[in-house]
Amino acid sequence: MTGRISTGGTTGRISVDGGRLRSDLEELARISGPGPGVSRTSFSAADAQARAWFLDRCAQAGLSVVVDGIGNMFVSAPSSSSSSSSSDQPYAGDGTPAVWSGSHIDSVPRGGRFDGALGALAALECVRRLHEEKVPLRRPVRAVVYSDEEGNYRHLLGSSALARGFTRAELEALTGRDGDRFVDTFVAAGWDLDRATQTKVDPRVIHSTVELHIEQGPQLERLGHQIGVVTGIVGLGGGSITFHGRADHAGTTPLAARKDALVAAGALVVQLPGVARSVSDRAVATVGIITVEPGSANVVAETARLTVDFRDPHQARLAELGRAITAAARAVAARYGVGVDVDFEPAIPPCQLDEGVQAVIAEAAAGRGLVASSLFSGAGHDSQNMAALAPTGMIFVPSIGGSSHCPDEDTAWDAVENGANVLLDTVTALART
Amino acid sequence: MTGRISTGGTTGRISVDGGRLRSDLEELARISGPGPGVSRTSFSAADAQARAWFLDRCAQAGLSVVVDGIGNMFVSAPSSSSSSSSSDQPYAGDGTPAVWSGSHIDSVPRGGRFDGALGALAALECVRRLHEEKVPLRRPVRAVVYSDEEGNYRHLLGSSALARGFTRAELEALTGRDGDRFVDTFVAAGWDLDRATQTKVDPRVIHSTVELHIEQGPQLERLGHQIGVVTGIVGLGGGSITFHGRADHAGTTPLAARKDALVAAGALVVQLPGVARSVSDRAVATVGIITVEPGSANVVAETARLTVDFRDPHQARLAELGRAITAAARAVAARYGVGVDVDFEPAIPPCQLDEGVQAVIAEAAAGRGLVASSLFSGAGHDSQNMAALAPTGMIFVPSIGGSSHCPDEDTAWDAVENGANVLLDTVTALART
Repeated sequence: MTGRISTGGTTGRISVDGGRLRSDLEELARISGPGPGVSRTSFSAADAQARAWFLDRCAQAGLSVVVDGIGNMFVSAPSSSSSSSSSDQPYAGDGTPAVWSGSHIDSVPRGGRFDGALGALAALECVRRLHEEKVPLRRPVRAVVYSDEEGNYRHLLGSSALARGFTRAELEALTGRDGDRFVDTFVAAGWDLDRATQTKVDPRVIHSTVELHIEQGPQLERLGHQIGVVTGIVGLGGGSITFHGRADHAGTTPLAARKDALVAAGALVVQLPGVARSVSDRAVATVGIITVEPGSANVVAETARLTVDFRDPHQARLAELGRAITAAARAVAARYGVGVDVDFEPAIPPCQLDEGVQAVIAEAAAGRGLVASSLFSGAGHDSQNMAALAPTGMIFVPSIGGSSHCPDEDTAWDAVENGANVLLDTVTALART
Repeated sequence: MTGRISTGGTTGRISVDGGRLRSDLEELARISGPGPGVSRTSFSAADAQARAWFLDRCAQAGLSVVVDGIGNMFVSAPSSSSSSSSSDQPYAGDGTPAVWSGSHIDSVPRGGRFDGALGALAALECVRRLHEEKVPLRRPVRAVVYSDEEGNYRHLLGSSALARGFTRAELEALTGRDGDRFVDTFVAAGWDLDRATQTKVDPRVIHSTVELHIEQGPQLERLGHQIGVVTGIVGLGGGSITFHGRADHAGTTPLAARKDALVAAGALVVQLPGVARSVSDRAVATVGIITVEPGSANVVAETARLTVDFRDPHQARLAELGRAITAAARAVAARYGVGVDVDFEPAIPPCQLDEGVQAVIAEAAAGRGLVASSLFSGAGHDSQNMAALAPTGMIFVPSIGGSSHCPDEDTAWDAVENGANVLLDTVTALART
């Protein structure tokens, strides 16, 4: 799965400004809600501040930005985003299919500095360097920031809005981590709900897409390799499971007379790892949020709602995992005499990334003298959605200790620069084809 | 345990105004935060509105009210609360030990109309009727509303403030159901933190106390009896248990590499009923609140904090139950490789109520032609704290279906009137001794 690929030519090659990229990453990391770590959930105040900062960085570089109805941001050198667009899609420029590169700037609560931010700011750095050096290209390169990748309201919201679009009813059904309705927060933050339903992209405006990201796992570090060429992305299912019991007084209701929704929920949480293992050794299942009503120390839980996130690299096993979790939830509910609703969203299928783009990334790594490994991604990424629209690739750089989605998330600065240079060479090569 | 006691004399006996009491209960029930049911957690906006309404009802009846530093309210006929107090305790009147009767007007979230409100408003009705009829008494009768009985910040807060008092440091350590600090909410609502530390009562100002309450269990209904004479109150322990794991990415972290705080918490929740049963067949244990951090669907839980409420009628078994739960929490933590903190508050010991007051209640019930049973209370009440200060009794009326702490909580209106009349006769008899 790993290999050193012989280098291509390096004539006239430019590089990223590693100091500037580091400074950008450090500045963005300081824009955060309550820590520790980085808390920049989508459509929060910190997210709005980060968006404003990003637009300002683009303006300082003389780049133009278009924002679509769901909050995806598209950055271009001015020549490639002229007003003589032949498309109704504002980022389509003159219609020449463009190379897109990007990631996200939202984070999980108390997350790290690099997940998303690295790929978004490295893409900005690539467009900035290509513009500064006036590198001649056959097609434009656009830096993209996808909205709400981390699913404060819906996992991969922004890229899903490009790939499939959302109806108003779908948007109205979205609820946030904190229980707020998406549409309330979105409109209160000044966004337009009508425009949010008009985001589906014409795939013909995209030539290819590349995303730089931290690995979020330990493999590159263990191998001592510098670049991961991502072959595919895990399939992702999930949603919520709600147990319905009966609120009762915690002192006067005998144990045998209770219908305790939280006991049933606890039993499912304990069983989930075993359910995942029974399906495949690559399957995982996670409950990250649990909400109990009425939520009083002296009242038996009436309802307990769990989020469930489950993943497997293979489509058939992903579906099997969803069925197995549903069956486990129903069995637990029956055992404890409570009701249960399983409400899973349509799964995001596992995807294979484009072999042609993988070859370009591998060549770019080799051209920089970096050792590359082929890797599979256990994390979901917007590239899953983009792969349905255009040839898509991903570049990984090592995560120290494999940690991610936590304040400890870290990547060495030379690894950041390596990854950004491989991204620059990759988008340059793609934009010359 | 049940008995019909021969009636005493009924010469000159007055009765409550059942229609007025019902109207008061219905009005108070309409003061609520989000339902279903009654949500009037202490120091919430609804609680403040209920306090204002209660003060207004007292003023309309020509009664005077004193409020202590923690929000306990003491209602007296004007003659018995004159300014010629020989005590530094504003509700001490002329120092003649008074008969206190009361309960609370705060509720659990989404609770019922009667838990607390019945005893508080029936006590008001008794003082109002005694005042209206100018019934000659040897000692004053005061209606009392205890603050935060339901433990939005601390179980039995108001009566504990009377019995033991709180230091500023203790008050500063209190956290609410919604995670807010007690002192922040308390001061923001206009209360004075210095006065809140000066609430401990001189027991000599209290002759005896009586509390009317719904049973919150099914026994009276099953027996077909109308009045419960409470013999004792369950012991109550609890606090919080926090599991400390590690936040990790829900996709990239193999199951075997996780330290998932919520899986450990779930295992404890599932075990708790068995742990309680192993200690005694009267023991109960309940988790009503669980809080997970960082709280994101795609992040493994770093911490999971549970409230634990455990009860037993016997002191030694209550202590044993606390030890057994602690041991179970530690065993679960060890099994799942996570840390654990057990933070239990000092237990409220089980208490026996005064046999003399029980006899007066039984006689009052018989005098009204009502069938009374002796019962033990599985719910905690402010009378537990008051029993440490003065001879204390409790009167129960039937709960339909035994339901409580939920919107279904209900008691028949004739049962409400029966209970209030027994309370009136009891406090009158005590105030004549």
